[in-house]
Amino acid sequence: MKEKLFVVKIGGALIDDEVMLNQFLEEFSNIKEKKILIHGGGKLATILAAKLGITQQLVNGRRITDKSTLDIVTMVYAGNINKNIVSKLQYRNCNALGLSGADANVIQAKKRNHSEINFGFVGDIDEESVNKKMLSYFLYLDLVPVFSAITHDKKGNLLNTNADTIASVIAQSLSEIYDVELLYCFDKEGVLEDVDDPDSVIKSVSQEDFSTLKEAGKLHKGILPKLENALGAIKNNVNKVFLIKETQLKNHIENHHAGTEICL
Amino acid sequence: MKEKLFVVKIGGALIDDEVMLNQFLEEFSNIKEKKILIHGGGKLATILAAKLGITQQLVNGRRITDKSTLDIVTMVYAGNINKNIVSKLQYRNCNALGLSGADANVIQAKKRNHSEINFGFVGDIDEESVNKKMLSYFLYLDLVPVFSAITHDKKGNLLNTNADTIASVIAQSLSEIYDVELLYCFDKEGVLEDVDDPDSVIKSVSQEDFSTLKEAGKLHKGILPKLENALGAIKNNVNKVFLIKETQLKNHIENHHAGTEICL
Repeated sequence: MKEKLFVVKIGGALIDDEVMLNQFLEEFSNIKEKKILIHGGGKLATILAAKLGITQQLVNGRRITDKSTLDIVTMVYAGNINKNIVSKLQYRNCNALGLSGADANVIQAKKRNHSEINFGFVGDIDEESVNKKMLSYFLYLDLVPVFSAITHDKKGNLLNTNADTIASVIAQSLSEIYDVELLYCFDKEGVLEDVDDPDSVIKSVSQEDFSTLKEAGKLHKGILPKLENALGAIKNNVNKVFLIKETQLKNHIENHHAGTEICL
Repeated sequence: MKEKLFVVKIGGALIDDEVMLNQFLEEFSNIKEKKILIHGGGKLATILAAKLGITQQLVNGRRITDKSTLDIVTMVYAGNINKNIVSKLQYRNCNALGLSGADANVIQAKKRNHSEINFGFVGDIDEESVNKKMLSYFLYLDLVPVFSAITHDKKGNLLNTNADTIASVIAQSLSEIYDVELLYCFDKEGVLEDVDDPDSVIKSVSQEDFSTLKEAGKLHKGILPKLENALGAIKNNVNKVFLIKETQLKNHIENHHAGTEICL
């Protein structure tokens, strides 16, 4: 039987709220099984860019990561946020190891090559991008990898990469070795039938449900890529995938079901 | 016989010069033996602080690391500089792993406690601060640890720590396991008899020589702490310690003597 591994993704709203973040990291530290944390960005990068007069580049409505923006996100995500989370986990006796994809070459991305838009320093990844051998060494040493959403192309370029996708591909890749449960933690109770009603949690979402919900216009913008990444994971051998509220981590781990379960 | 390990420290001037930095990292990557890199800061933190209107706090002429300054150095040292160096090394097939002291708890510092001055978020370390077990696991995995000068106190605080001291205590700590050679790489040919004459390199400096040079006022301000850290290392079982010019790394490794050797 494979050993259990939790792959947990947290988003920007949690990172921006120190009280909630501390509470979450306390619950995360208390997970007895092997675990990996992936964190998104939060508002700090946007605030810093504004203070420095760096404006967000848009081409055809799509966000571009130019060199100045890459420098900002590298500083904020891989520097400030990552090291603060690591030190907060260390305080809680959780042996966290902060990582970008460049560190120990754990995630090697491809710089996005688009026929019409130059996205700049954006990295695309799939299951093959993950160095599962190195990650399993770290897990074997009882380290808790903590990922920022910065990867690299092994050609000397750091790349901005979607954190939801990083969580999904790490979970997929390590499913060969571990019994992986992937948890997307965010500020909603799960996928909601009515976005304004926290009691309208849909208990499970399959690919078919997803298509139906999408066509009916019931999926708010932020949840679409999260669900696509979650469905990608369940299709590629990840044992369990859930979308849960950030405050429900302990409850979910102990009671085995909070939020929305993603099914085949 | 112990295995050879190079512990190499580089400073801010090198980090600020991309052409020179690339050349240095090429030579560093080509070192066949086990190796560790420690990097200082460079001008970026100062530039960023100025742009953000964060002024350097001084108390009795001593620099203070307040929370805003800590955030800046964490972003710049542990984020921007560290991850850029790691990705440049990965490009050169050197399996770099960027670390702050908080990561895997590799360096646990004590927040400076001074009777008169509150230095803020400054961390003091000694040989005992280094997690040599974890570092030797990383070296065993053929990883190349790359340290920024940020540590932590395991109470949830990140701390600003002198990079020369980090290099010295890592070298001391790992001398129990490895045959360590500590190299301080900087912008001079070595310790100079006459600071304006690059040909006036003093071939070796002992504790006694250091005291004589210091009394004679021959040591310029920047080299004093470097020499103190270098002498601390040689007194605490580090096999070899040198101060060399950043452009002389390859020459030093191949020809076994460039710059100033530190002796007992």
